[in-house]
Amino acid sequence: MSIRIGIMGYGNLGRGIEIAAKEASDMEIAAVFTRRDPSSVKILTEGVPVVSVDEAEKWKDRIDVMVLCGGSATDLPVMTPKYAEMFNVIDSFDTHARIPEHFANVDAAAKKAGKIAVISCGWDPGMFSLARVYSNAILPDGKDYTFWGKGISQGHSDAIRRIEGVQDAKQYTIPVESALEAVRSGSQPELTTRQKHLRECFVVLKDGADAAKVEKEIKEMPNYFSDYDTTVHFISEEELKKNHAGMAHGGFVFRSGKTGANKEHSHIIEYSLKLDSNPEFTTSVIIAYARAAYRMHQEGQTGCKTVLDIAPAYLSEMSGEELRAHLL
Amino acid sequence: MSIRIGIMGYGNLGRGIEIAAKEASDMEIAAVFTRRDPSSVKILTEGVPVVSVDEAEKWKDRIDVMVLCGGSATDLPVMTPKYAEMFNVIDSFDTHARIPEHFANVDAAAKKAGKIAVISCGWDPGMFSLARVYSNAILPDGKDYTFWGKGISQGHSDAIRRIEGVQDAKQYTIPVESALEAVRSGSQPELTTRQKHLRECFVVLKDGADAAKVEKEIKEMPNYFSDYDTTVHFISEEELKKNHAGMAHGGFVFRSGKTGANKEHSHIIEYSLKLDSNPEFTTSVIIAYARAAYRMHQEGQTGCKTVLDIAPAYLSEMSGEELRAHLL
Repeated sequence: MSIRIGIMGYGNLGRGIEIAAKEASDMEIAAVFTRRDPSSVKILTEGVPVVSVDEAEKWKDRIDVMVLCGGSATDLPVMTPKYAEMFNVIDSFDTHARIPEHFANVDAAAKKAGKIAVISCGWDPGMFSLARVYSNAILPDGKDYTFWGKGISQGHSDAIRRIEGVQDAKQYTIPVESALEAVRSGSQPELTTRQKHLRECFVVLKDGADAAKVEKEIKEMPNYFSDYDTTVHFISEEELKKNHAGMAHGGFVFRSGKTGANKEHSHIIEYSLKLDSNPEFTTSVIIAYARAAYRMHQEGQTGCKTVLDIAPAYLSEMSGEELRAHLL
Repeated sequence: MSIRIGIMGYGNLGRGIEIAAKEASDMEIAAVFTRRDPSSVKILTEGVPVVSVDEAEKWKDRIDVMVLCGGSATDLPVMTPKYAEMFNVIDSFDTHARIPEHFANVDAAAKKAGKIAVISCGWDPGMFSLARVYSNAILPDGKDYTFWGKGISQGHSDAIRRIEGVQDAKQYTIPVESALEAVRSGSQPELTTRQKHLRECFVVLKDGADAAKVEKEIKEMPNYFSDYDTTVHFISEEELKKNHAGMAHGGFVFRSGKTGANKEHSHIIEYSLKLDSNPEFTTSVIIAYARAAYRMHQEGQTGCKTVLDIAPAYLSEMSGEELRAHLL
């Protein structure tokens, strides 16, 4: 029997879930849930119903795992505990500082309902967290380095758009190549914020806006830009749409550690991602963990889990025997 | 209470286990077991008894996890099932083709005794297996690439040493840089054996040996060298000892995959290791999984496990709360 996936929310993430679930031979999409008028939502898969979120509870026995495609700021803190009372759920909650609180809320709801809830699933938090935890456990005497990019930062792009005179903007976070090389050398450098990432901005001005003033305002913006080497390019709206509409992203997680009776040996563990589509990669991770959620629930487990609590074999379509024979 | 570690065998791996266990604040070394005369074995840690393997059974209640530091060819197939009847055990069995058989034997013994046994722990199999399984589960439509090196291959060095006229030799396996770059590009190249790795040999000849003949014999050796671009350097014994005694190693695991309704997006996952000391890194992995074995046994789990069956949180000294707050 297939794992019946529900998709709650149909934006970039929802569409990615739809594509990734179709790729999995052990899954089927049961329904897509939307806050919009269902008749206005056109999905890729024929025959899958689009349903109002208000109807979700009626689907309790027809969905094995509900994938919650909401934002971390306001949607998921409410949605995940709410739907964990009805379904096994999975989300991509990514506000690192609020994970402990979110975990507690979701854990209580899921345990009460006898469901599994997987939170904070994607690449950071998610695959990058795994890289950090494995490498810290293996090399307890060492230093962590995480770099993001090259990719568009939504938060920084939004910050530029709020400046007077700016019509639209995209901001790329770019790891500094010499910093990556310094980390790879095993020297365990102390790197300042400025030494780790560059920020490159592509800005469309409103008619009559003062370019010099906008550029100064960007470069001096505290927290977002003032601690970085920032480049600002003014371009046309057409150019922005044509060249900067992609959703590529990626990054690097390093652990640089020492072993030996006298700490004489250096080791570098490097994990990196180069992604053409940030949302499609995120949803590919979510779909693998949706499989795990289903299996853990089948085994009678309940409560909130993160990628740290889930054995890798649960993610694969292959059996334990196949994994040991082919991938171990 | 500390996790009491037993070390069975005291060569490079045993010494590495000793160093790594001392680094862990939640572990103590209970005893080192040897097939040699115990009085002849000098270990790094004061106060830890060195005991004959014949006495091992008497330590059943004084050791939480026994680390088996034997070879995969003949030692571990016998040792691991044998000691799984007395202890929670962990080994670094690395003959990929024989893992299913080893797993079955160890699983039966461990289940019967109510113990946990972790097999095939290290970096390949081990961390590289994890990289393969995670990335295959996330990107089901894709291609795997594993590269080893730069590092000494024991098997290839041994093969050279068996040639007439050779006194000693070391062989480095080296990934081909252009192949790494081709994989990183996302083009999913088909790579032949020759295109993936180079073999570089440092050979000390016996007096009067024929260098040209030895070089020809190396380069034409089937399986080991004939499918590779091989370089042979003849050097003095002194130079071999001085410059080629290190135990550095490493490698790269890639998954190059596609997503999208029309497979229009490429993603590259890269995991790499650069290790000054192959045995010390291997034992650092083993010690983290020894912690997991102890915890799983405390929970009442039994039987044979591999890295694929063990959730990452079990490896860390940190609690679930600490991990979620700091590393997720």
